Amino acid sequence: MEMFKIIFLPDNVAVEAEPGESLLEVANRGNIHINASCGGEGVCGRCVVELREGTVQASPGLYLSDDDYQKGVRLACRAKVDGPATLFIPLESRADASFFKKAAQADEILTVEHPDPMVRQTCVILSPPSRDDNQSDLDRVSTALAELGLYDNDIDLSAMRRMPEVLRESGFKVTVSIFYELALQNPHSSAWGRIVSFDPAGSDDDFFGLAIDVGTTSVWLRLVNLATGEVLPSIGDLNGQISYGEDVISRIVYAGRKDGLKRLQTRVIDTVNRLLETYEQSYPGYRQKTFLIVVAGNTTMAHLLVGLEPKNIRLAPYVPPASTWPSLRASFLGVNVEPHTVMKVFPSVSSYVGGDIVAGVLASGLYKRPELTLFIDVGTNGEIVIGNQDWMTCAACSAGPAFEGGGVKCGMRAAPGAIENFLYEPQLKRHHLGVIGGVSPTGLCGSGLINVVAELFRGGVLDKRGRFVEGASPNVREGADGWEYLLSPAELSGGGHDVVMTEIDVENLIRAKGAMFSGYQTLVEAVGLKMDDLERVVIAGGFGRSLNLENAVTIGLLPGLPLNRFTYIGNSSLTGATLAALSGAMWRTAFEIKQKMTNFELSETPGYMDKYMASQFLPHTDEGLFKLQRGAA
Amino acid sequence: MEMFKIIFLPDNVAVEAEPGESLLEVANRGNIHINASCGGEGVCGRCVVELREGTVQASPGLYLSDDDYQKGVRLACRAKVDGPATLFIPLESRADASFFKKAAQADEILTVEHPDPMVRQTCVILSPPSRDDNQSDLDRVSTALAELGLYDNDIDLSAMRRMPEVLRESGFKVTVSIFYELALQNPHSSAWGRIVSFDPAGSDDDFFGLAIDVGTTSVWLRLVNLATGEVLPSIGDLNGQISYGEDVISRIVYAGRKDGLKRLQTRVIDTVNRLLETYEQSYPGYRQKTFLIVVAGNTTMAHLLVGLEPKNIRLAPYVPPASTWPSLRASFLGVNVEPHTVMKVFPSVSSYVGGDIVAGVLASGLYKRPELTLFIDVGTNGEIVIGNQDWMTCAACSAGPAFEGGGVKCGMRAAPGAIENFLYEPQLKRHHLGVIGGVSPTGLCGSGLINVVAELFRGGVLDKRGRFVEGASPNVREGADGWEYLLSPAELSGGGHDVVMTEIDVENLIRAKGAMFSGYQTLVEAVGLKMDDLERVVIAGGFGRSLNLENAVTIGLLPGLPLNRFTYIGNSSLTGATLAALSGAMWRTAFEIKQKMTNFELSETPGYMDKYMASQFLPHTDEGLFKLQRGAA
Repeated sequence: MEMFKIIFLPDNVAVEAEPGESLLEVANRGNIHINASCGGEGVCGRCVVELREGTVQASPGLYLSDDDYQKGVRLACRAKVDGPATLFIPLESRADASFFKKAAQADEILTVEHPDPMVRQTCVILSPPSRDDNQSDLDRVSTALAELGLYDNDIDLSAMRRMPEVLRESGFKVTVSIFYELALQNPHSSAWGRIVSFDPAGSDDDFFGLAIDVGTTSVWLRLVNLATGEVLPSIGDLNGQISYGEDVISRIVYAGRKDGLKRLQTRVIDTVNRLLETYEQSYPGYRQKTFLIVVAGNTTMAHLLVGLEPKNIRLAPYVPPASTWPSLRASFLGVNVEPHTVMKVFPSVSSYVGGDIVAGVLASGLYKRPELTLFIDVGTNGEIVIGNQDWMTCAACSAGPAFEGGGVKCGMRAAPGAIENFLYEPQLKRHHLGVIGGVSPTGLCGSGLINVVAELFRGGVLDKRGRFVEGASPNVREGADGWEYLLSPAELSGGGHDVVMTEIDVENLIRAKGAMFSGYQTLVEAVGLKMDDLERVVIAGGFGRSLNLENAVTIGLLPGLPLNRFTYIGNSSLTGATLAALSGAMWRTAFEIKQKMTNFELSETPGYMDKYMASQFLPHTDEGLFKLQRGAA
Repeated sequence: MEMFKIIFLPDNVAVEAEPGESLLEVANRGNIHINASCGGEGVCGRCVVELREGTVQASPGLYLSDDDYQKGVRLACRAKVDGPATLFIPLESRADASFFKKAAQADEILTVEHPDPMVRQTCVILSPPSRDDNQSDLDRVSTALAELGLYDNDIDLSAMRRMPEVLRESGFKVTVSIFYELALQNPHSSAWGRIVSFDPAGSDDDFFGLAIDVGTTSVWLRLVNLATGEVLPSIGDLNGQISYGEDVISRIVYAGRKDGLKRLQTRVIDTVNRLLETYEQSYPGYRQKTFLIVVAGNTTMAHLLVGLEPKNIRLAPYVPPASTWPSLRASFLGVNVEPHTVMKVFPSVSSYVGGDIVAGVLASGLYKRPELTLFIDVGTNGEIVIGNQDWMTCAACSAGPAFEGGGVKCGMRAAPGAIENFLYEPQLKRHHLGVIGGVSPTGLCGSGLINVVAELFRGGVLDKRGRFVEGASPNVREGADGWEYLLSPAELSGGGHDVVMTEIDVENLIRAKGAMFSGYQTLVEAVGLKMDDLERVVIAGGFGRSLNLENAVTIGLLPGLPLNRFTYIGNSSLTGATLAALSGAMWRTAFEIKQKMTNFELSETPGYMDKYMASQFLPHTDEGLFKLQRGAA
């Protein structure tokens, strides 16, 4: 079959392609990222590329105007190869990972004083074999460990194969790394040791664990020193699966395609491997000494990572194949670490309340504190936990992608070029923009959308129903999709087009915040409490970091409670995984949290729909809920 | 580099070879077996091939006369490729596996009434998920198992991946196969379950285990039905490693070469896979339902099977890397079974008292009976166990290969063409031969050698020192290697040459039987007993099956005890493995046997050398030890 060369600009990467392949497939094969929220189904219209040379087979349609088509714009998922071609990927179609590098620096650094990890190292000094004592190497080791009170050790084959050499090289003074296996169901009852490695006993006692947060959008890693408890700076990158859809549902659909599951698994493992490689620059050789990986991710991410078909997650009655995971070997899944590296995956509660939330609750301390706490992770899938040391309930609500810039006309992720901050001056009827990375604005990210809506609502430009007030601002105009507010004209924008916020965008945001608010309102009432009983509100997620608290209350996303009751805890999933990597007791606590949580299916819970309808206003039909109380509780 | 075609007759297999490769290497590469007792070191002279066409680079030498060289005879390990060539592999250089098929039919069939295997199947009927009960599939299974009292189940990834499909296909009625993991050191203390497979609960409840005896010479398999306890007929084949040397020392040496360990492992796994394939004809599809493999083999065979460098086994102080083995997955080692098939390898006592002997002691019942028992496994490495239900001692002695036809001028394995039975008529000075397979004689196997020596000694042809008595028989003549007895002239023989037994062969046998006898004599005395205190003598090993008891006493291999104290138990290693496959209790007993056995290094035990010297006669300096007592004890 004749093959054609497809060149992608600005990176100038050439990929050989067959006639009939979609440009998205070709780009994916060449490891070139093009945003495709819907996973290549042709319904999100975000995978725009510009034809610069050659030809592709395509036609205008619902998501592509004739005008844009004439200018050479194509949707990568719909356009098919029929000859050599050169295509330019515009900024808004590209994921920019540089933001993660910046965020990493700002990440808090934890230190744990007395680590008690699931993998421990024991130095054993053996008497060398002699004619009077010629028991096997393994029996010799087992006997010595038993004398230290460490009975019942099983052993890895890879450790066994290195054992004779290491014993003799080290003069029979070895460090034995033992993984304390914990049973699936009841982690307290059956702990036994499993020898995973032998190393010469030496001067360097450091050994490492890795905490990994596998998010739908991004993957974060953090190295921890299991000997000292030192926690090293985290690094992050976009989850390589993002080319196959931006939300978990698109991923689950994609996993059902031929080789889809394998491909998604490979992508996220590739992302992890890239990050591991990056760490190598700062900590050369750390992988040799990494014995444990603790992963937290939502239920779908866990299934895709481990390679379990996730389709039942999205089919009623929403039963995931697994909510606990056996101990795995990371290398077995393709992670570039030694065979001795054990991988533990956080347990989840339900299809939509995953291990990331269990880790988050662990990190928040909610499970051990007396105060009644609301924990919320704001995102496309919003998760809510209410409880304290005695009880916990949880629920997930599908807020839609508005919080992450999805389903929004000029929406984008919180990457450079995204309008994040917004200030409106009602008297002057003008605004000021704060753009991530200090560059020209390209679009509007989720927290930016909240800020714009809140400011325009306070400034009288938007009314209670989320409609523009006629004549309130010269920037309000009628556009292709109805009324819109011009944030940045094309000539001042990074993408070369007007950046606007439409009434439809506002509607989407109202739906999203209403889903979240009515979610926790339902949960609060279901347990017989009132909103004001909440003594602590913990906001988690990458989103939380850039959220303006007052604006979130203004639009009705957060309840009006005394300011000092709110806490941001950032990436609590990564923090929880870090704690579990450092401490076996914390890992066991994660199981207790999972067991203790009562999951509510909101759609099945009486009153949710009424509350949802009442929340479809700025801020709400009941405005009293949203008077921010500036004093202490 | 130029390559040459080397053709091996009679099978007419062509192998491409580089100049300088030895013919043995070329044959091995082509999977063509040529006997090479010494592993290709050029010192056994058994790998003779005949050059029919072309040329190879070789010269006559210690193991190849000028005369034979002129006739085209070459040693495959010494002859090097220097052009295209055609070579004939004569009968005596080929291993004939057909004997194993015959032996299999004669094999005893065990049946165990109430199997209690390490893998068990539990039928679980689950309530299907609903909106009110949407716990994960795995939690649902775990809860149901817990209700049956089966807590603490971990799970295989492969089982997990099939679980959602199997649950739904079967209407949530499934058979769960659980492997009860046992710790390395103390199998009693930490048993937990590990789910290895899910299958739809159905009409067919059969599930299988495999017992495997991995011997230095041959590999035997036996299928057992773990549901019913039925034991199916065993099958055997030559261990594919045999091309790399006939005894464990040659194999250990070979393992030290580049890729040697990997190659030896591959060869024995290939042998197992061939046998598994053979079983498929009788029990189609059995592998799908095989959940457990129990392997017994000597210490070296266990190391080679699992892929552990065995070199320390033969270096003082003879410390094997391992004497216990973790639970393995057979498929991980390359065995063609499902990922759910767990492999357990018998523990061994020392470098030369291996898992085959532990299995043999298990099969013999020695460990649980009050009678003082001598257990001997006669072979190149003779193993001895003395004890009863209260105590056990063991030792290994290097008898040399005479019992298996090695180091004997016309020696061969007990395969078709081997002289096995021999009757001498002193009056007529003539003999009668019994040949395996009823064909023309090609050589002399180990048990045949014992019979020939015993008969000729009783007939006055051999004296006490193992020398031919002058003029005692017309068949005694002076040959190339000194005095010899003509067993079959060339014209009546299968190989086209005279079949003889030399004085050197007799010397080798005397050394071998002396090593065995002085071994157990030393052991008996070391524990303060006399030979006559032995209430039971159990003879194990493939050799035992064809041993003539009276002749064995005549030459001084076995002590003169009442006949009813002797028992043959055949391949006790396979029988022990069979018992352990059927019963987890038996498997634990194997560990008790290992722990209980006191190993003696004979060379370090006072008196052994004196006893050995005294045994270098027919039957012994102390003839009184060998008066066979025909009555009952």
